Amino acid sequence: MSIPVTMRASRLLAAKTLVVEEVPTPALESTDVLVLVAAVGLCGSDVHFYDHGRVGDLVVEQPLTLGHEASGTIVAVGADVRTSRIGERVAIEPQRHCRFCDYCRTGRYNLCARMRFASAPPVDGAFSEFIAVPTDFAHPIPDTMSFDAAAMAEPLSVAIAAVRKAGVVPGGSVLITGAGPIGIAAVQAARAYGATDIIVSDPLPRRRAAAATYGATETLDPVSDERLPEESVDAFIDASGASGAIVDGLRRLRRGGTAVLVGMGAEEFPLDLFLLQSRELQVVGLFRYVDTWPTAIALIATGSVDVESMVTAGFDLDHVDEAMRRNKDDDVMKLVIRP
Amino acid sequence: MSIPVTMRASRLLAAKTLVVEEVPTPALESTDVLVLVAAVGLCGSDVHFYDHGRVGDLVVEQPLTLGHEASGTIVAVGADVRTSRIGERVAIEPQRHCRFCDYCRTGRYNLCARMRFASAPPVDGAFSEFIAVPTDFAHPIPDTMSFDAAAMAEPLSVAIAAVRKAGVVPGGSVLITGAGPIGIAAVQAARAYGATDIIVSDPLPRRRAAAATYGATETLDPVSDERLPEESVDAFIDASGASGAIVDGLRRLRRGGTAVLVGMGAEEFPLDLFLLQSRELQVVGLFRYVDTWPTAIALIATGSVDVESMVTAGFDLDHVDEAMRRNKDDDVMKLVIRP
Amino acid sequence: MSIPVTMRASRLLAAKTLVVEEVPTPALESTDVLVLVAAVGLCGSDVHFYDHGRVGDLVVEQPLTLGHEASGTIVAVGADVRTSRIGERVAIEPQRHCRFCDYCRTGRYNLCARMRFASAPPVDGAFSEFIAVPTDFAHPIPDTMSFDAAAMAEPLSVAIAAVRKAGVVPGGSVLITGAGPIGIAAVQAARAYGATDIIVSDPLPRRRAAAATYGATETLDPVSDERLPEESVDAFIDASGASGAIVDGLRRLRRGGTAVLVGMGAEEFPLDLFLLQSRELQVVGLFRYVDTWPTAIALIATGSVDVESMVTAGFDLDHVDEAMRRNKDDDVMKLVIRP
Amino acid sequence: MSIPVTMRASRLLAAKTLVVEEVPTPALESTDVLVLVAAVGLCGSDVHFYDHGRVGDLVVEQPLTLGHEASGTIVAVGADVRTSRIGERVAIEPQRHCRFCDYCRTGRYNLCARMRFASAPPVDGAFSEFIAVPTDFAHPIPDTMSFDAAAMAEPLSVAIAAVRKAGVVPGGSVLITGAGPIGIAAVQAARAYGATDIIVSDPLPRRRAAAATYGATETLDPVSDERLPEESVDAFIDASGASGAIVDGLRRLRRGGTAVLVGMGAEEFPLDLFLLQSRELQVVGLFRYVDTWPTAIALIATGSVDVESMVTAGFDLDHVDEAMRRNKDDDVMKLVIRP
Repeated sequence: MSIPVTMRASRLLAAKTLVVEEVPTPALESTDVLVLVAAVGLCGSDVHFYDHGRVGDLVVEQPLTLGHEASGTIVAVGADVRTSRIGERVAIEPQRHCRFCDYCRTGRYNLCARMRFASAPPVDGAFSEFIAVPTDFAHPIPDTMSFDAAAMAEPLSVAIAAVRKAGVVPGGSVLITGAGPIGIAAVQAARAYGATDIIVSDPLPRRRAAAATYGATETLDPVSDERLPEESVDAFIDASGASGAIVDGLRRLRRGGTAVLVGMGAEEFPLDLFLLQSRELQVVGLFRYVDTWPTAIALIATGSVDVESMVTAGFDLDHVDEAMRRNKDDDVMKLVIRP
Repeated sequence: MSIPVTMRASRLLAAKTLVVEEVPTPALESTDVLVLVAAVGLCGSDVHFYDHGRVGDLVVEQPLTLGHEASGTIVAVGADVRTSRIGERVAIEPQRHCRFCDYCRTGRYNLCARMRFASAPPVDGAFSEFIAVPTDFAHPIPDTMSFDAAAMAEPLSVAIAAVRKAGVVPGGSVLITGAGPIGIAAVQAARAYGATDIIVSDPLPRRRAAAATYGATETLDPVSDERLPEESVDAFIDASGASGAIVDGLRRLRRGGTAVLVGMGAEEFPLDLFLLQSRELQVVGLFRYVDTWPTAIALIATGSVDVESMVTAGFDLDHVDEAMRRNKDDDVMKLVIRP
Repeated sequence: MSIPVTMRASRLLAAKTLVVEEVPTPALESTDVLVLVAAVGLCGSDVHFYDHGRVGDLVVEQPLTLGHEASGTIVAVGADVRTSRIGERVAIEPQRHCRFCDYCRTGRYNLCARMRFASAPPVDGAFSEFIAVPTDFAHPIPDTMSFDAAAMAEPLSVAIAAVRKAGVVPGGSVLITGAGPIGIAAVQAARAYGATDIIVSDPLPRRRAAAATYGATETLDPVSDERLPEESVDAFIDASGASGAIVDGLRRLRRGGTAVLVGMGAEEFPLDLFLLQSRELQVVGLFRYVDTWPTAIALIATGSVDVESMVTAGFDLDHVDEAMRRNKDDDVMKLVIRP
Repeated sequence: MSIPVTMRASRLLAAKTLVVEEVPTPALESTDVLVLVAAVGLCGSDVHFYDHGRVGDLVVEQPLTLGHEASGTIVAVGADVRTSRIGERVAIEPQRHCRFCDYCRTGRYNLCARMRFASAPPVDGAFSEFIAVPTDFAHPIPDTMSFDAAAMAEPLSVAIAAVRKAGVVPGGSVLITGAGPIGIAAVQAARAYGATDIIVSDPLPRRRAAAATYGATETLDPVSDERLPEESVDAFIDASGASGAIVDGLRRLRRGGTAVLVGMGAEEFPLDLFLLQSRELQVVGLFRYVDTWPTAIALIATGSVDVESMVTAGFDLDHVDEAMRRNKDDDVMKLVIRP
């Protein structure tokens, strides 16, 4: 395949302003591969950038390509990569770490201060025909795995990272608050990690029903009077970002239990010091993922999780803005862009 | 030694009301030993019970013997304990767990729901001539160790538990906020665990000076403009219980770092969710200690820590109330009751 | 139910000599429960005691009741156990630890030097009408679980302990050598812990077929020229006790991998020091189990493992010797005594 | 400083044949720094290469520069390294890993299959005027630290890696067999990690005396009848490579204990399977080190360990062969080459 000099990309110029432009095909570092993008999940953060032109400190100041839940086929390789990789179907881990700092050297590369993360300004993401990726982050997938499923290795990676930090073990129990895509992925990851009691709390009936479909053993409506008893679960994963859900979830943790806070939203929440101490709880923040793709791919490939059915609909590059709007609909779990 | 049927004990009848009474010498369970109490440290929680008649949910509703930082000599043993233990000098771990629940069975006995903790109402403590203790919690001490030092194994145990949870390792850095007895014990424990940067923050100059004496490599006044830079320490131990100290300390933690909250006081504090997530912090509550006495005794015996010099003065059973008042003085680090 | 003063028990008098005798019903310690035995698996060690009158240092010097894979119904309780436990159906953990030594206190009770293990001389086991068990080791089972399945929680516990020590994680690979009952239980435990590559090696075709049925993704005949490549698995569990299997299995471990040696048999084996070092391997011995019954019961109850189908046949107390002989047949996976 | 095109290096042409040659100054990769070598410790493996022309599979087939315990000053930097590093005094970690494989990505870079280790054929080491090193492996040292001490960060790193894997904790006990440089470094590392019982076994009185000087609390002569009791230490580090020492040391481990085998020599040793299982021991191989230099430098800088006094004598580049011969003398602990 000859690589064109330019490619089409969906560019965010400012809040609510997406255009498809012809941009230079990304140059490869010597240890990169170039991937022809097949599928890219639409993430809540993409929508937030689209709506507001920023997420927290990260501001879109120049045209930006969004999208970081991606899969595709390797079509070219850098000078230091063996050419036999060309043609491989891959799931893309959207991180580019420095490989030289203390964090990178000790295997916590997600905390690298010089991380360039695809779709976080000013680093372009994957809503484009091609993307350049470090060779080790173009993870090979089996022929039997669809590109949609491979793209879903990204949200599944968040869930795997959360479940690992929460210490979910076979026979254990876990409360998951929020049944959006990350919450549903967490349900599936918890089940794959052996949890036998998986309780999901979400105010939307449709989402509770989805959670049950994907493995929740119990679902709760947090706004009704349904309540878990105090000290009833080994682990708690918040995928809602709602202050009330966090505060309430902490009370459900057994003594010695761990809460992993994944959902974004609340700026801060009041942490009950006496509760934390008298029950010896651990409250843990999660920042992306480390070394999750091999696990995610294995779980998808063996059918331990079903991420493909989480995809509600697909759009092409010219309809990313439509996907952005459609994403707010109640019936949407995950939309996919297929460049 | 013949054991008298009754003994003298300092009894808290209500807030501010301590009297020395003759009470029955404690009966022994078959696996208990009876200890002739030699020294008992006065803890902040003892003073809080004295001042207010309660600590949180724990209310003094019947006469209570305070004191749980104790040492002494075994003078009698229960039916299932070998009599050769009589005469042993011991440091007392003031816990009595059920030994049958999930927590006890898996080595987290501090979380036992049926814990009877000496000096927590309605369980009597050690400000008395004798105390009954489970045989395995009467930890033998070497002849060369003073009873005062052995009593200090209790606050040192809190510090050891904190340092373990904080993941302090040789060559590491730790911020300790609050330089009261627990803070100073934490400084010493951190040094014994190999930390080479030990930064202590306390508003009182005298306490900062003490911290430096016991091993702090840097001291800070939190109310002046002295500030640690952001992301500058591997671990953070709060021994102040002050909301501001906790909030500020968390900002000093390096990405991936752990905060252990030991100090009591603040009811709740605002936890910055974005900070917790973007730096992938862990915030951990500490509830007493598990399996710390052997370590504490080894560190005291080998001189790795110096707890004896932390004792400011001693009082007899008839002057516990004087000790309670004296404890508020600035120049007091630790008072000891010697029944 | 009124408890009879005596009960029937199958007693091993000497090698090859089993008789059913009337013996006193076991007395209860205050924290014990009395279980009416429903099912007891026959373990290889029972057969070894039957054949040789000893296992290693453990010699049958007085009549001994064998059997330690047991389940049944609580029919009486000691003075310190709530009477509401009477009637509970339970799986029995056959350990009785001292609860006071360093190992017990820190949650490694399997290493307790004063352990009294059911069926290890001189401690009687469960091939009898009743057995006395510490209340916390009579683990409740759901109504839907058969007593046969509950008895199998014991071999499954060995497997769970092995899989935990081997560090099996979702998406991981494990080699299991030996496909007897423990090997098959290990296959199931590895699958429940998420391993996606489970390779089983056994010289018997029937056992390899069984392994495949229970979740092995690949089976090998070690005596043919079939060989795993070097450095091909994350973890290795030997359930054969054969020196050759251990030596060979270690070569299949990836750098940094862990071998857990469960199978008994080989007195010693030659460990290649250069291999151990250059690949930074860990070789770990397993001694029974700690805190595995809750996990085992959860995995059985939810269908994550299927142990019931591993039971080949059942015998009553009068036919334990027949079971001992029958156990050597190729077609036997697990025999159960039903008193 | 202008960098000369060629430099002097001590080259091993074949067993026993060392010559000083003019060779090209090493080229820098873009992320490398060039270090003017100040001090290089002479390791047992260097001597083994000198004596035999090989170590195991590693054969000297072309002229080779030995030496991998090095320190010096940065005199030039690659294109991607900030020039302000020039002038820094550094301790050198002699590893060059691929940074792209699973091991590198997850922080176990010592196990990287594409590792190029300085002084392991065909990769040149540090017995030369200059050496090129990845920038993150040129670890800055304080001005107060001598180059000799900084070079000793390498054997200290082996010791730190061993002590970490052995799980040495404050108040713990450890047996160290073999009191050569690694054994002595292990004594010091164990002390820095808080061990309060450090027992050293070595047949040579001079070495036992040295061990006592550096912190051993007890020394033993293994060939006399002096014997530690069975099950007497928490951890065991073999720094002798002698089969008998390993076999004997394992018997001294407490149940649940860990043995770390560091010493090379024995091809294999007989591992007692019953011992391993009934005491639930862990036997662990060590392959170099991961992330130890920052710890080593901190411990040296703060005086927690004293490595400088371990240096017996120094030689220049022209006298490496003399150092090789001298290294066998009883009174030598560590020789240093100072190019």
